[in-house]
Amino acid sequence: MQILIINSGSSSIKFQIIEMPSEEVICKGLAERIGLENAELHYELKGKSHSEVMALTNHEQGLLAITNMLMHPEMGVLKHPDEIDVVAHRVVHGGNRFDRPTKIDASVLEEIERLASLAPLHNPANAIGIKVASAIFKNANQVAIFDTAFHQTIPEKAYRYAMPKALADENHIRVYGFHGTSHKYVSEQAIAYLKKPASKMISIHLGNGCSMTAIKEGRSVDHSLGFGPSNGLIMGTRSGDIDQSVVFYLMDSLGMSSKEVNQLLQKQSGLLGLTGYSDLREIQKAAEEGNNDCQLALAMTSYRIKKFIGSYIAALNGVDALVFTAGIGENSSVLRAMVCENMEALGIRIDAQKNGQRTASILEIQKDNSEVSILVIPTNEELEIAKQTFSLMSVI
Amino acid sequence: MQILIINSGSSSIKFQIIEMPSEEVICKGLAERIGLENAELHYELKGKSHSEVMALTNHEQGLLAITNMLMHPEMGVLKHPDEIDVVAHRVVHGGNRFDRPTKIDASVLEEIERLASLAPLHNPANAIGIKVASAIFKNANQVAIFDTAFHQTIPEKAYRYAMPKALADENHIRVYGFHGTSHKYVSEQAIAYLKKPASKMISIHLGNGCSMTAIKEGRSVDHSLGFGPSNGLIMGTRSGDIDQSVVFYLMDSLGMSSKEVNQLLQKQSGLLGLTGYSDLREIQKAAEEGNNDCQLALAMTSYRIKKFIGSYIAALNGVDALVFTAGIGENSSVLRAMVCENMEALGIRIDAQKNGQRTASILEIQKDNSEVSILVIPTNEELEIAKQTFSLMSVI
Repeated sequence: MQILIINSGSSSIKFQIIEMPSEEVICKGLAERIGLENAELHYELKGKSHSEVMALTNHEQGLLAITNMLMHPEMGVLKHPDEIDVVAHRVVHGGNRFDRPTKIDASVLEEIERLASLAPLHNPANAIGIKVASAIFKNANQVAIFDTAFHQTIPEKAYRYAMPKALADENHIRVYGFHGTSHKYVSEQAIAYLKKPASKMISIHLGNGCSMTAIKEGRSVDHSLGFGPSNGLIMGTRSGDIDQSVVFYLMDSLGMSSKEVNQLLQKQSGLLGLTGYSDLREIQKAAEEGNNDCQLALAMTSYRIKKFIGSYIAALNGVDALVFTAGIGENSSVLRAMVCENMEALGIRIDAQKNGQRTASILEIQKDNSEVSILVIPTNEELEIAKQTFSLMSVI
Repeated sequence: MQILIINSGSSSIKFQIIEMPSEEVICKGLAERIGLENAELHYELKGKSHSEVMALTNHEQGLLAITNMLMHPEMGVLKHPDEIDVVAHRVVHGGNRFDRPTKIDASVLEEIERLASLAPLHNPANAIGIKVASAIFKNANQVAIFDTAFHQTIPEKAYRYAMPKALADENHIRVYGFHGTSHKYVSEQAIAYLKKPASKMISIHLGNGCSMTAIKEGRSVDHSLGFGPSNGLIMGTRSGDIDQSVVFYLMDSLGMSSKEVNQLLQKQSGLLGLTGYSDLREIQKAAEEGNNDCQLALAMTSYRIKKFIGSYIAALNGVDALVFTAGIGENSSVLRAMVCENMEALGIRIDAQKNGQRTASILEIQKDNSEVSILVIPTNEELEIAKQTFSLMSVI
């Protein structure tokens, strides 16, 4: 089964063709800067990387450019669109309705569009991707894989906010949680690696966005992102958790509008707001060279992760493993060390030498006498989407 | 030394006269509903309670009514204002400047008034109380005891928000923390009781407002309330922590103003918003009778406290004692049990029988095999203020 995976962002489309069940990646790439004259199409094929600059006015043109490339005789990927059996779409917000991979029909598409009010930056792009792909890959099944689905097992005491109940229910205001595909993928990898299905786990996804999930027996039971993807951990440009008094003070005492405050907390805060840099590698370098702001930003970032670990250990009444994943989680041994230091009281002891190693597969970095396993597991959202899609199509 | 303690709220003045160092309470009481025709003055004297209804237009009239009562020949409390050696004022917000009890002069009063922008409901009332008391008790020293002072030892990684640094610094936006007098009092009681100055402790103040403090060797190192007294734990009518996305959604999608959202989260949320009741005793009763909303509200409240306990254990790398205090913390064995159940992994084991006991002094309620002590300690903010004032006057 050839699965085309489409991940449409506000100005980009990531794609991969994965052959299932062999899990072979046939082709992968990215159209970015969509909407600009100098948009770019990048792709990898047979071990080689290619890039082209072209004008891509909108998502439809982006997806057509990707399809044209895939069907170009020189590429040899596809001879006809019908060779794609399923197009699997990553959809950010699935609301309360979608707790699993779902075959897309008119009513599903309508619901994805309706949920745009909860994910204004993401769901509209996802919906466009579905429409365009349905037109091009006419005979393929279209499937939606929701970022929020993994978190639909979170119990009400953890997903409800302490605000007026009727207002919250009428407007579907609750914790949804995000990065579900990644948290699901790495926690399943960890369960298989530890051979312990009945485990308690905390997955720590540190990438452009950052989030943590408390996982019991493979199911999400709590999560650091909430109604939107803004709160919880400190991120590249997002503040994460912040006292709502600050939001009101910025508006009522400093005269900012709600949109300005929202932009400030989404785009100019986090590591960028604290240091002037948004790339963790630059911050680590500057911190080493004595930059106080960068040292503080690392201390704050790791301290907040540490506190979420503690809170999830309380929620789970124990923990078998911590799992670090995504760009920063997989690559920053410095941050992992800062998170895990001085955590002996919780049974967490990191091994400096093991933490310094690099590998493309699972890395186990706790000391021999650590009660808690500490794992570094590369995430692979596209593979997880392909697996879920394959599994869905096998039962339909 | 006779100390008159004044705690001015937006529409009330609480007072006590305490003789130091004997700690004898000479008289205590409360003027409430100030600003209304049917304001009330309550006081206790020689074991008897008294109440009078009277018109009190403002704080000046309230304090005059209190003084008149104290100096009334039949009461026999004071013959002359000069018998009061010190008037100690509880001041809610001390900003960055005040980290200890402070003798009030013109510059201190000015700073307290300037900090009103950070505590608009409290500091103006505190400043009026100081001015009126200075006029009546002309020859007494006036001293300010700040709610925020105890938290000035919180390290920067915990008090700073991940927002643009210059904006935060210019506008003094940071975690200040509140209920400091209570957290200091009960943690000192606990340290003395456990005979362990080098202890790690978590104090849990559950009253009208609710907050938690991580305390290391007697010093506050983290706290659940932040810039204002709104976030953290679920309170009677306040939401506590809430994803900022919800605030923006209520404004931008539902058309509410910032003031309306602020009011909603301060006055109509928390236990009230979840259940329709704001009194925990009613909620417990309804929960026992099968009310789902009330059962959920208790589960949410205790779950959030549980998570803060975990996060502070991570921050402290261990904990010697939990301390429950204030109205709910001292009286709700139900909530204490819910907080402490299923926490064995963190060394916390509550004893149901001990938890059900009542006493006016310190109650120790953990099981014999619990690594962590669980204490219930009645708070006494007025006594703490008297002690700090006495200690300040002894060194001046």
